[in-house]
Amino acid sequence: MTRGKLITFEGIDGCGKTTQLRMLERILTGRNIPFVSTREPGGTDLGKMIRAALLNVSPHSVDPLAELLLYAADRAQHVREFIAPNLAKGILVLSDRFYDATTAYQGYGRGFDLTLINQLNNLATGGLKPDVTLLFDLDVATGMERIHRRSGDAADNTTDAQADRLDREPLEFHERVRNGYLELAHQEPKRYRIIPASGSIETVRPLVTEALRGII
Amino acid sequence: MTRGKLITFEGIDGCGKTTQLRMLERILTGRNIPFVSTREPGGTDLGKMIRAALLNVSPHSVDPLAELLLYAADRAQHVREFIAPNLAKGILVLSDRFYDATTAYQGYGRGFDLTLINQLNNLATGGLKPDVTLLFDLDVATGMERIHRRSGDAADNTTDAQADRLDREPLEFHERVRNGYLELAHQEPKRYRIIPASGSIETVRPLVTEALRGII
Repeated sequence: MTRGKLITFEGIDGCGKTTQLRMLERILTGRNIPFVSTREPGGTDLGKMIRAALLNVSPHSVDPLAELLLYAADRAQHVREFIAPNLAKGILVLSDRFYDATTAYQGYGRGFDLTLINQLNNLATGGLKPDVTLLFDLDVATGMERIHRRSGDAADNTTDAQADRLDREPLEFHERVRNGYLELAHQEPKRYRIIPASGSIETVRPLVTEALRGII
Repeated sequence: MTRGKLITFEGIDGCGKTTQLRMLERILTGRNIPFVSTREPGGTDLGKMIRAALLNVSPHSVDPLAELLLYAADRAQHVREFIAPNLAKGILVLSDRFYDATTAYQGYGRGFDLTLINQLNNLATGGLKPDVTLLFDLDVATGMERIHRRSGDAADNTTDAQADRLDREPLEFHERVRNGYLELAHQEPKRYRIIPASGSIETVRPLVTEALRGII
């Protein structure tokens, strides 16, 4: 049996990757292509507890190194419990973020040594790499505006927490994350597809299917 | 100001280390020696969430690698938020388990590569080592008997969970952990004090104060 393909969705907060993942799910369902979709952190039961610890906006603040290790723990469980078994069954897996997010956020964003990040990523994934990574590229100001609008619109605690968490970091942090993603795309042009994500949902949608031509 | 001392309490489940830590607290209080006591996992707010995820006996099973990384995350937060700042203030810190537990349980017990374990320990602690480590040494059968008696006595979920978790592992696992601790004590005779822990609480108590002569 052929191994299933792994497609990851990456980009800064507000880039629209989750919305586009949902759109792709509908397309796959319409075409009767079997798939599962998941996310990091929080793709497993254990991961949900880790996600709650990480995104919690309670008085405790998470130390950056503890944060890095929690993402690695979430990923180790996620790969072994969910991603690898699905790929082994030949199923297409879509993941909203994967190890590139750690490289972009903790490496380029927070400044952790990239060699350490790569070692932890490799440890957690056991060397598993996505077949395609879609990078939804967007300027930081637009991304933050979208998150804040979403937070204002919806009486949704998760979105509020996301907006709060976003605001804790200076604008330069998010700029470093964006540039980090672009650098990763530059280093692995075969795996990465850069999708300009400043347009409307309907404008971006065909760019996704176009980027995945020959894959799905 | 002199840096405070760090004393860690180690040993297999049921070895009596937590009870002896409580006894030592009373002695220190009686002598007006300032101290703080803590434990791993769960020494911080974040750590409590990690501890709950680790010791949870719900249907999700924790992957061994995820477990290893969660202990490292708990430790990173613990050292930076609690242990190091207290030591810097000159305060004596007592910890119920520290990184040696990861070497004994995940390294010797589960068989993870000891070089990887040492790297993760060193990353999480930033190189901080205990001044003294008390190893409460006990045969595995006696340790397990104590845990089960405790679980039967007290209508205490934590103790029940501990007994359940203990029973998940074969006896040989606990033997490897015990021998791992003894190996560590052998490698660092200056830091380690082996305390024979098969006797009653009152028999072991003076061995602890004797082992800490010149330290507290």
